[in-house]
Amino acid sequence: VADDTSVPALGGRVLAGEVRAVARAITLVESEPRSGETLIGAIFRHTGRAHVIGVTGPPGAGKSTLVDRLIALARQAGRRVGVIAVDPSSPFTGGALLGDRVRMQAHAADTGVFIRSMATRGHLGGLARATGDAILVLDAAGYDPVIVETVGVGQDEVEIVRAADVSIVVLVPGTGDDVQAIKAGIMEIADIFVVNKADREGADRTAAEIESMLGLKAAGPDDWRPPVIRTAATTGAGVPALVAAIERWRARGASVRRERRVWRADAWLREVLGRRFIEHLEHDVLGAGELATVVERIASRAVDPYEAVRSLLERGVASPVRGG
Amino acid sequence: VADDTSVPALGGRVLAGEVRAVARAITLVESEPRSGETLIGAIFRHTGRAHVIGVTGPPGAGKSTLVDRLIALARQAGRRVGVIAVDPSSPFTGGALLGDRVRMQAHAADTGVFIRSMATRGHLGGLARATGDAILVLDAAGYDPVIVETVGVGQDEVEIVRAADVSIVVLVPGTGDDVQAIKAGIMEIADIFVVNKADREGADRTAAEIESMLGLKAAGPDDWRPPVIRTAATTGAGVPALVAAIERWRARGASVRRERRVWRADAWLREVLGRRFIEHLEHDVLGAGELATVVERIASRAVDPYEAVRSLLERGVASPVRGG
Repeated sequence: VADDTSVPALGGRVLAGEVRAVARAITLVESEPRSGETLIGAIFRHTGRAHVIGVTGPPGAGKSTLVDRLIALARQAGRRVGVIAVDPSSPFTGGALLGDRVRMQAHAADTGVFIRSMATRGHLGGLARATGDAILVLDAAGYDPVIVETVGVGQDEVEIVRAADVSIVVLVPGTGDDVQAIKAGIMEIADIFVVNKADREGADRTAAEIESMLGLKAAGPDDWRPPVIRTAATTGAGVPALVAAIERWRARGASVRRERRVWRADAWLREVLGRRFIEHLEHDVLGAGELATVVERIASRAVDPYEAVRSLLERGVASPVRGG
Repeated sequence: VADDTSVPALGGRVLAGEVRAVARAITLVESEPRSGETLIGAIFRHTGRAHVIGVTGPPGAGKSTLVDRLIALARQAGRRVGVIAVDPSSPFTGGALLGDRVRMQAHAADTGVFIRSMATRGHLGGLARATGDAILVLDAAGYDPVIVETVGVGQDEVEIVRAADVSIVVLVPGTGDDVQAIKAGIMEIADIFVVNKADREGADRTAAEIESMLGLKAAGPDDWRPPVIRTAATTGAGVPALVAAIERWRARGASVRRERRVWRADAWLREVLGRRFIEHLEHDVLGAGELATVVERIASRAVDPYEAVRSLLERGVASPVRGG
């Protein structure tokens, strides 16, 4: 798969919806960014059709069970569903959580469901980039919706869910600590809140806390106020109401969705472009080890770091750097 | 302060340890990155002396109380202490947590302690950059140690603590959920673990869980195995043992500290350089609104995004881009 001649062919097979090609394509964008680019170039114009649903929340909130319920309802409606589970992996365990592996096996027989686990570590070029490319692969292969599930503990994961067409934040009844913690970055990205395990004590209070926070917030785009849906994913209670909320969001028209996609394209472009410039510097301009020497000199306080940046920028580009 | 002629003078007053100059300098690096650069250039060679102590952990772990105890012990030892509290701020509350404000008032009378709260939102050029610059200001002004306290919920915050000379992760006895959650990015950065509120039920189990995870992990640099220290910050119990562990880490010599600083300089250089290249593109190369048009065309699937990157990179640099 690594040689470029076969990559466009792989793209064709992805567009035809071939399951094994989809799996190989995602492996490619995860592990070989350069070949992955060629692939994305081959399929990109055929993407943008799937509704991308982001699901996040703290560990133990029951996100996986909830996603299973969403899959089941979408299958009943005759849809092919793609799922990317962004798993926290640690240097201690080194891989996906056991629960996800079990879950993936449960759907293994259904060719209308494609589930892929992506670990949060070790992606060349970043997790957000790899996840974004994997969404494009599923989209191009005709999966719709594409569900992206993450554990909301890192900026990367928040960015991923924020980039979805609709962002769902899942909480559970608790001491209030959860809501407090989640204020620091996750609350603001929610288009829809779910209080899962709503049969537990404290569900009313958790929902009220969210509503109260929302009361302090300026209304979102198009005056959308994020609904707070109560579910019990283990029994399925409340899940149809969640699906209805997702459909209401989707029906609000193309403008919000378009705004979100522009935001996503902007963040992506800046990140990749910045990285490419540094690659250009390292490969085309500087001698071997020269960037590392500059870094050493900054670390040892031998140079002013901003002066070093100016000098490297000027060497990297031939046109004079104005402004500043 | 905004005009460049007065910025070097401000740098001189920072180096003289003048408290009001320190406060103004931090405001400058937070709010005016360009003038901030001039300031950092003026003080940079006089930095690198302070021991930078990073403290993170989930909300409610008692980090602030613990930091207060560390301040008190350092003051008893005759040291001037700088503290940066990176506060989760939300669009709902828009600012620092109340507790920190109260705490800062408690130290207001002690000129040997400088505490500054930095919100996580709205920093031009990024929180990690602003925090890094604020550490340099405190360092140049003679504060040692400089303590950086964050709530470990975002990638930014993890990066900040990871960049410290010593990283302390604070946990509390709990259901095991905490340890599970924290595996996803925070566990691996700890040089020292603290189980705070160690008088609570479950402290032994939490400590055992951490030890058990550490048992699975390869030994760190210099065969350092992160110690697990039990504290009760509200009474002060265990805090001297924590200080002893910090001193043991510091005494291990300059090599680990140096490695950490090179890592920090490398991440900093790549981030700032990438952003500067895009500024160069926008200001010197592209027409007004041209980058936004490219973004629009990517979002609407009118162009291959990687092709757009190649084209922008080639326009931004005159020397031919090889490789790829």
